[in-house]
Amino acid sequence: MRIGIIGGTGKEGAGLAGRWAQGGHDVTIGSRDAERARAKAAELSGPAGRAIGGMSNRAVGLETTLGELKDACRGKVVISTVVPLSFGGGRLFTPPPHGSSAEEAQALLGPDARVVAAFHHIAAHELSAAGHDIDCDLLLCGGDADAKKAVILLGSGMGLRAVDVGALTNAGPLEGITAVLATINRRYKLKNSGIKITGLPA
Amino acid sequence: MRIGIIGGTGKEGAGLAGRWAQGGHDVTIGSRDAERARAKAAELSGPAGRAIGGMSNRAVGLETTLGELKDACRGKVVISTVVPLSFGGGRLFTPPPHGSSAEEAQALLGPDARVVAAFHHIAAHELSAAGHDIDCDLLLCGGDADAKKAVILLGSGMGLRAVDVGALTNAGPLEGITAVLATINRRYKLKNSGIKITGLPA
Repeated sequence: MRIGIIGGTGKEGAGLAGRWAQGGHDVTIGSRDAERARAKAAELSGPAGRAIGGMSNRAVGLETTLGELKDACRGKVVISTVVPLSFGGGRLFTPPPHGSSAEEAQALLGPDARVVAAFHHIAAHELSAAGHDIDCDLLLCGGDADAKKAVILLGSGMGLRAVDVGALTNAGPLEGITAVLATINRRYKLKNSGIKITGLPA
Repeated sequence: MRIGIIGGTGKEGAGLAGRWAQGGHDVTIGSRDAERARAKAAELSGPAGRAIGGMSNRAVGLETTLGELKDACRGKVVISTVVPLSFGGGRLFTPPPHGSSAEEAQALLGPDARVVAAFHHIAAHELSAAGHDIDCDLLLCGGDADAKKAVILLGSGMGLRAVDVGALTNAGPLEGITAVLATINRRYKLKNSGIKITGLPA
């Protein structure tokens, strides 16, 4: 699959890029600063013979703000891993007016973007430890069944069990789980708490 | 522990009553209709020699609306298992204006009630199958450390591992997880999906 990661130089983006490149996908990470993207891509390309490209968000065919991405994302599968957390003390998670960041992205990109909310709970720390099994389910939701199939493939390629949590209106609760995991990480001094759904047939 | 369950004749309340009575606690379930509470209590008291009381919510020292419960709950540990789900189609979970039902209860009961949000994810179906291990963690949050200790005891008495998710401002995300589990139950034709936190020390 050809995958472009907007703002892919952060920990989560870099972790996903590494795992997907390892799975044989053609991955390019974008940054506002093309030089920074190239440097990060070179760094990530080292281990395990992975080749990751780096360019400006614009050159990836992407822009830095979602509104400008509308044309580029038409018909494409767009994965929203965004979680609107506020670390300033007080309430950690408040859903945005649309109900979730994923629904906000859908509203900005228009109905032709096939938005799937996923990968919020897969810790960057787990992603970056290559060769290490990730002990977390891939919870995802969205309105386009084929787009969800593509995301499930991207998850199973890194050994993740996917659990389909229905329509994009469930993205708020999925994003909120990250607040739960972030709090658990802090309280129990962990870097990589995750969640597994119980009761599913084996 | 002496435990009163407001509206305890429903599936979740009856399940908790059964498990707690089995653990040796002194449990009374309340209902608006005292006769209905007594009948349900008699039915629940049958198995395993449990004795559960039943009376009107008012007689349990409780009223049917939280606002009227303010005096009765002063200084007491109050467990909120409430999840504001809308099953009419569309969005399943929308947090109330206070952020969560638990924070709404805290606001109604005043600062002297020691509100803990917990037990949202323990399926009624799992609770009622006595002698059956419950494959789900007990996620809880609240502002009173001693109240959380009491709730953790109530959970460990039925074999649940407790995970402390910090302050009551995290109750919204905990309540939202129930929307995730309800959706999974519907999509995968289950009655008792649950969640486990991964990455915690054994």
